[in-house]
Amino acid sequence: MNQMKEVSSGEMLSLCKRRGFIYPAYEIYGGIAGLYDYGPLGTALKGNIADLWRRTYVLQEGFVEIDGDTIGPEAVFKASGHVDNFADLSVTCKACGESFRADHLAKGLHPNPDSLSIEELQGLLRANGVRCPCGGEFADVEEFNLMFKTKIGPGAGRTGYLRPETAQSIFVNYINLYRHCRERLPFGCIQVGRGYRNEISPRQGVIRLREFNMMEAELFVDPEDKSWPRYGRIKDRKVRLVPNTDGVEVEMGIGEAVDRGIIGNETLAYFIWVTYDFLTAVGIDPARLRFRQHLKAEMAHYASDCWDAEALISFGWTEIVGIADRGCWDLSQHMRFSKADLTAFKRFDEPKEVERDAIRPKFGAIGPRFKGAAGDIKRQMEAMDASAIHDGLVTVIVDGTPVDLDADHYDVVRVREKVNGVRVVPHVIEPSHGLDRILYSCLEHAYAERDGYVTLRLRPAVAPIKVGVFPLMAKDGMEEVAKALDLALREEGIATYYDDSGSIGRRYARMDEVGTPWCVTVDYDTLEKGDVTIRDRDTAEQARVPADDVVAWVKDRLKHGLVC
Amino acid sequence: MNQMKEVSSGEMLSLCKRRGFIYPAYEIYGGIAGLYDYGPLGTALKGNIADLWRRTYVLQEGFVEIDGDTIGPEAVFKASGHVDNFADLSVTCKACGESFRADHLAKGLHPNPDSLSIEELQGLLRANGVRCPCGGEFADVEEFNLMFKTKIGPGAGRTGYLRPETAQSIFVNYINLYRHCRERLPFGCIQVGRGYRNEISPRQGVIRLREFNMMEAELFVDPEDKSWPRYGRIKDRKVRLVPNTDGVEVEMGIGEAVDRGIIGNETLAYFIWVTYDFLTAVGIDPARLRFRQHLKAEMAHYASDCWDAEALISFGWTEIVGIADRGCWDLSQHMRFSKADLTAFKRFDEPKEVERDAIRPKFGAIGPRFKGAAGDIKRQMEAMDASAIHDGLVTVIVDGTPVDLDADHYDVVRVREKVNGVRVVPHVIEPSHGLDRILYSCLEHAYAERDGYVTLRLRPAVAPIKVGVFPLMAKDGMEEVAKALDLALREEGIATYYDDSGSIGRRYARMDEVGTPWCVTVDYDTLEKGDVTIRDRDTAEQARVPADDVVAWVKDRLKHGLVC
Repeated sequence: MNQMKEVSSGEMLSLCKRRGFIYPAYEIYGGIAGLYDYGPLGTALKGNIADLWRRTYVLQEGFVEIDGDTIGPEAVFKASGHVDNFADLSVTCKACGESFRADHLAKGLHPNPDSLSIEELQGLLRANGVRCPCGGEFADVEEFNLMFKTKIGPGAGRTGYLRPETAQSIFVNYINLYRHCRERLPFGCIQVGRGYRNEISPRQGVIRLREFNMMEAELFVDPEDKSWPRYGRIKDRKVRLVPNTDGVEVEMGIGEAVDRGIIGNETLAYFIWVTYDFLTAVGIDPARLRFRQHLKAEMAHYASDCWDAEALISFGWTEIVGIADRGCWDLSQHMRFSKADLTAFKRFDEPKEVERDAIRPKFGAIGPRFKGAAGDIKRQMEAMDASAIHDGLVTVIVDGTPVDLDADHYDVVRVREKVNGVRVVPHVIEPSHGLDRILYSCLEHAYAERDGYVTLRLRPAVAPIKVGVFPLMAKDGMEEVAKALDLALREEGIATYYDDSGSIGRRYARMDEVGTPWCVTVDYDTLEKGDVTIRDRDTAEQARVPADDVVAWVKDRLKHGLVC
Repeated sequence: MNQMKEVSSGEMLSLCKRRGFIYPAYEIYGGIAGLYDYGPLGTALKGNIADLWRRTYVLQEGFVEIDGDTIGPEAVFKASGHVDNFADLSVTCKACGESFRADHLAKGLHPNPDSLSIEELQGLLRANGVRCPCGGEFADVEEFNLMFKTKIGPGAGRTGYLRPETAQSIFVNYINLYRHCRERLPFGCIQVGRGYRNEISPRQGVIRLREFNMMEAELFVDPEDKSWPRYGRIKDRKVRLVPNTDGVEVEMGIGEAVDRGIIGNETLAYFIWVTYDFLTAVGIDPARLRFRQHLKAEMAHYASDCWDAEALISFGWTEIVGIADRGCWDLSQHMRFSKADLTAFKRFDEPKEVERDAIRPKFGAIGPRFKGAAGDIKRQMEAMDASAIHDGLVTVIVDGTPVDLDADHYDVVRVREKVNGVRVVPHVIEPSHGLDRILYSCLEHAYAERDGYVTLRLRPAVAPIKVGVFPLMAKDGMEEVAKALDLALREEGIATYYDDSGSIGRRYARMDEVGTPWCVTVDYDTLEKGDVTIRDRDTAEQARVPADDVVAWVKDRLKHGLVC
């Protein structure tokens, strides 16, 4: 039996490179810190993890999926706050030109350097005479925006940024998605794709990347109803929580944590469970997984609650998923900056009688001035209420152009009317996954050894290769049988690795090291009796199975329904 | 029966937006030309097309897949030629600031404006008094590089570009991939991912995008052996070819085209067939598909042959795949710029005796100068031959730094030796797919009407939703049965759409318009007899099937092996 074993990040990355999981990018050109490419096995592993995640969110929870552009215009990231607030403090050596994160240089000089202002950090580094490893003096501490900037189009062009998260692609499509989901709350949308973060000096392998892969889900909910239909089914399940009240880890039922006010609401709690279920399904070790609540100071000002799923890996406890109740922040910001209506209509069970201040167009002023467009303007004004008046002006759209109308064009009147519902700005609950970190954690948690050889105990569902297919020797017809079996598996969409070189033990070892759960060997007995050996990666046990049953045998073991 | 029908791009894009296939990006911020997002149905369709493509290349042809970074350093695109040659000619209006492609403005003034030099185009526009639509005068014609530029890291940073094609990520990983594929030719690698092209003024919907999705395959072959093992199986298949000799379309067997010297070699021909097979499998109409050979003038200087798969859509015959024999260009260029060894070792059947000019290190000079490093330098020199001498100098690596040694450090001697093989720079055969264009062409080719209603006759394998599930009415227990059926399908990974609102006819129409092949209705008979109605999208015919058999019925019809 193989033994689970802790592995250093150096050993892990070396295995990753040697066996084709992850390659440092552009190595033949000297490489670039924070950029890694996925090799053949890493690409398959990543695809399998993402597929299982889609299954969870789309097929199980009924979310839709979109795929948005990675380049966005400045306005989007003004609204999201990234243009103004997505920065780290940087210092550059005057001698060698290398840059560093200022807070990293202040480690050991202050208990919490990333809480310091630019002036405080500057003062701290100066006072302690901190210099560059090359001996050079540092220039002043500067803010460095972490978005990659570019220009869209020729000439003066238009400023664009590479998105720092996939979420904004969902928010800017809110209107389309709300319609697509037939204008009902709650509805959810996921996205799997690239995010970019122009790190100052990334050094932690695939844990801190300049270009990374995210899986984000944005659930739009009624601000006054954060219940979830399937919550009842999972509320007794237990997870390891680290609440921000005392920072002490505790194993607790999901429902109990909600009832005691530790987790903000049912929906957030439900998706903490979904996250747990998904992570353990792809191979995160439950004993090395916990949910840590953000400290009040650490939480974004708009978030009402936020939990990180953390995995214990060679870099320590590492955030791999963040699950936050972001309130109405995202949609409100985009409403403010785009002027688009990003609300949802919340229908009452019964129509209600309400009073409101309506705008009544003065047709005598509007008719002569706007002629044929007057009718349309009247309709626009009737659809507003007094909250649409700013500085005494009402804005209407005439031939696509906004036109401001002063009080000569309207009256404000108190009306009493029956309404069927109200418009609300939905709240957003966001489980946001770092796909690269999840993948890397799966690799570390799968790492085991047997007799000095490495075995990756990857879950069959995510293993890049499901079956190694070997002829005992490439002769006497064994090769043909093995090749036919290999093709039969591939025909069913099952990834295989055909190998006829070296001893069977050597071939097993090769497959163990890349996490292939089963190896099938065609031998002389196969030619006589029609059965093959199937060898299990984790137990090293062998079973004889009729060759004709192999495809069904494998499919049966790969079968997995929805996770929770 | 519904009728296939030609559709205008306007109608198609309007349907795409209305039903959630494709959304113009950032619409709430006024949009950006050349950027589109995939909505829920488009994302699923795109994923399904890509999955089928992977199946073809990975499971059928044995290629590996990688996933590389989209940001690359300047050196990579210097080597690939994109920094120097990936440009269009642009003119900007002095009055309104809008930019245009200069060759587009010259349409009608010259038979082939994109063949003109910058001066010729400038002269032509001036001579004809071409002005901006706003009436303004144009500034001089300029070269505009079509790569998006950015800066990696803080301070002076490092110039980076968004990759204009995915291929370079494969070429720069050649050494890793060659090892991964156990140092044997041929081997192939695919990639599905983003490419970027900062178009001057894109106007053709999703046909000309600034951010697009590619599926590229790079096959590394022995320059002297462009045969392909499976070629014999497909050489009698016929495709429509437009050879560059006379430009006349002809239906011809793949093998005949190779034999007559029309298609350059067997491997290229084989992948033309694979492309045909794949495209028709995802829904390109064979009657609207042809393979056009590049004109000699149109071909890249290094390419020995190149064919475009073209689909006839509302924009005319449109390139959707390019299949080229790129010779040794890509790897030679990266060898030249990176100095890395991007060759393959070609083993002879029998060792051969050869003569060569070897470098013999002069240990008397090297020993005293390099001390402990001398042994390593000697080994490096012995591994070279005289072709490594440039301007009398031999470059060795000492402590990671290149050092040039002059003739005092070596002799050149003629040696006779037995060798097991030679190192060659592999040739590259590249089928490069525009995923967005393929998807869009599938939509246009699937477009049909019945009684004035739109039906998308998407192939079941790629349809975003496979099954509509309807209770006849949401009462008397029909809803529960329908929901259980819906869940049973989802558990098997089958995408469904549950709908209980409106008449059944209305629900059918909704599913027809998004290309859902089957609808299952649970009615009163289901409650009594346990069977349901399955209605076929294309024939509108209905069958009664036991509810318990529905999952198997659907899976059976979705089954598809490898394409060729």
